Amino acid sequence: MAQRKSFESMPCPIARSLERVGEWWSMLILRDAYYGMTRFDEFQKSLGIAPNILKRRLDGLVDAGLMVRRAYSDKPLRHEYVLTPCGHDFRPVLLLLMDWGNKHFAREGNVIHLADEQTGRTIEPVLTDALSGERIDSSRHVVVAGPAANERIRARLAAGQERRRQHLESLPHHVPEFHP
Amino acid sequence: MAQRKSFESMPCPIARSLERVGEWWSMLILRDAYYGMTRFDEFQKSLGIAPNILKRRLDGLVDAGLMVRRAYSDKPLRHEYVLTPCGHDFRPVLLLLMDWGNKHFAREGNVIHLADEQTGRTIEPVLTDALSGERIDSSRHVVVAGPAANERIRARLAAGQERRRQHLESLPHHVPEFHP
Repeated sequence: MAQRKSFESMPCPIARSLERVGEWWSMLILRDAYYGMTRFDEFQKSLGIAPNILKRRLDGLVDAGLMVRRAYSDKPLRHEYVLTPCGHDFRPVLLLLMDWGNKHFAREGNVIHLADEQTGRTIEPVLTDALSGERIDSSRHVVVAGPAANERIRARLAAGQERRRQHLESLPHHVPEFHP
Repeated sequence: MAQRKSFESMPCPIARSLERVGEWWSMLILRDAYYGMTRFDEFQKSLGIAPNILKRRLDGLVDAGLMVRRAYSDKPLRHEYVLTPCGHDFRPVLLLLMDWGNKHFAREGNVIHLADEQTGRTIEPVLTDALSGERIDSSRHVVVAGPAANERIRARLAAGQERRRQHLESLPHHVPEFHP
């Protein structure tokens, strides 16, 4: 496996999340776990992945606290991989990845989608503000520094804010009109 | 770089999404693009990434349709990387990754969070059903086969359903009570 820089030392929560689930294959393993799979052979069959890589990724998800490895049979001793509450909490991220994939890359139509189990109605998942119920909107809901932000994070936010301002000024409606 | 199996041949929309954004670094580049960054040097400074890797990832995001490369200066010729509508559409995924990271791995407190730009109020992003406004709930909202599902997808869904049934039966409340 190629050596790669760890994101663990980065305080950004997106980097910390990716440190745990950002390896190639990890999110597809989680997808299959949400489908209900728990056993090594099930994951391997579903993914068509080399056993040594699958083992490494499953162990990584266990180390990261998203799954636990537990015995489901004594004779012979067999283990399965079960989602923890932290692992279950990740499901909405995959549902949005699915929805984004369906919107942009499903050239043959949707192969899977979210539905109400009882009625079968197709569900469109959207991100909303828990308090008001309004849709999250990038022009209104922005990422800001929290209480634990360090100088690097504050500099990144400030740099971004300055660049957004420049970008807005460069848009056509900021260009002075031409009066011949 | 290590050779890795492409997810492109997989019809699953989660796999197709990860084929485009699942490389190490890609989502952190997108994060910085949402902050407002567009220039190579800005990304490099923010991420502390090797220039050859950054170039490869940016080109990958362009090839995948999430960014466009365009000139912002003629003399000297300089390019910047700007999000496309498809790239902008990915933002909710990163907001949920941020929220999940804040909930589970922010041991020093939150360094960033979502807020209302006007009022400063902290926003908790939640995934809801666009039609009813109800929160997405794994016991009720399930992933099902769509019109373009192939046999492999149907088999995976069926295997998962069977395993969920077995799992429920193995839970304590399904064990017959012990009467001495």
